[in-house]
Amino acid sequence: METTPIQMADQPEAERCDAVRNRALLLDAAAALVAERGADAVTMDAVAAKAGVGKGTVFRRFGSRSGLMQALLDHTEQELQHAFMYGPPPLGPGAEPIDRLVAFGRARIALVDLSGDTLRAVEDSPELRFGSAPRQVSLTHVAMLLRAAGTEGDIPLLAHSLLAPLEASLVMHQIRAMHMPIERIADAWEDLVRRVTESPAGH
Amino acid sequence: METTPIQMADQPEAERCDAVRNRALLLDAAAALVAERGADAVTMDAVAAKAGVGKGTVFRRFGSRSGLMQALLDHTEQELQHAFMYGPPPLGPGAEPIDRLVAFGRARIALVDLSGDTLRAVEDSPELRFGSAPRQVSLTHVAMLLRAAGTEGDIPLLAHSLLAPLEASLVMHQIRAMHMPIERIADAWEDLVRRVTESPAGH
Repeated sequence: METTPIQMADQPEAERCDAVRNRALLLDAAAALVAERGADAVTMDAVAAKAGVGKGTVFRRFGSRSGLMQALLDHTEQELQHAFMYGPPPLGPGAEPIDRLVAFGRARIALVDLSGDTLRAVEDSPELRFGSAPRQVSLTHVAMLLRAAGTEGDIPLLAHSLLAPLEASLVMHQIRAMHMPIERIADAWEDLVRRVTESPAGH
Repeated sequence: METTPIQMADQPEAERCDAVRNRALLLDAAAALVAERGADAVTMDAVAAKAGVGKGTVFRRFGSRSGLMQALLDHTEQELQHAFMYGPPPLGPGAEPIDRLVAFGRARIALVDLSGDTLRAVEDSPELRFGSAPRQVSLTHVAMLLRAAGTEGDIPLLAHSLLAPLEASLVMHQIRAMHMPIERIADAWEDLVRRVTESPAGH
């Protein structure tokens, strides 16, 4: 997963590159801690030790543990976000809205399979669970696709209802505790989307 | 909310009544603590102090904090469970399956509005969130109604997807952070159920 450099005009080029590398290094360390020992193991101290830098560096970069967790979520979701906003169809622009919605859920389920521990760690934080920027982007994306498909009804709440079964904690429960193949979970998502959007208008 | 006495043949009547009263007293104390100060405030010590009993009584009754939280969930969900299993239609037996499903979600949303802090406290516990007995009962109930309505597809996963938007944390976010009227949330649930179940077969 790559980190998109943010242009900061008041920084020299070399310093900017160091900052970007440093940030990626710290986020990789945090993600590794989540995977190895769970979200509770992600403290500012542990991330500094893992990345081989001073604790002050972690604080300067992220401000607080909550800021670090938020940045970790952005890092984890960035590739998916980029793919559904700018990538090739059917996930990106160019495909039919319903096919894009199906592809969005399938990609999200695959991301949970890959980085579920990190995603779930963020869901476990009450202030980030529903308020995070990536969740807002996903909600906006789903609502946009529903409207583009001509779906009627309470679109904001329908977007909530469609995102709810894609939550990392539920999908991980289905994969790990219920031993469901992710293909089955992805097929059930497609079935749900088609039911919701193909329903006769004005039922 | 009433506590149904469990018949225990080896206990004299009076002792049994004391035990039932005691249990209800402790659970009311725990629920009050959740409402006043959040789930983290529910310790064995705090519940004992609130109920005016010794800490040993709380441990004898519930074994551990996790046992107490599980019992609190059972207590909170008991009335709803009873209503959808044995109560009058449309929630209970006698109505059409889809109308029962609509009534189930509406009753659940009303319960979140009433006891959301307690329900959310249990959802925040990873081992109880998906593994609790009341959740299992709800899943079985939703799957049974979908089958009774002749709904085709992957019924266990469809039941997961329909329960997901009813989770206390999401509904509380909609009510408290987004200031949505619960009637709007309940209408969106009914709309979702009708879309999912009225979709043309074999799409």
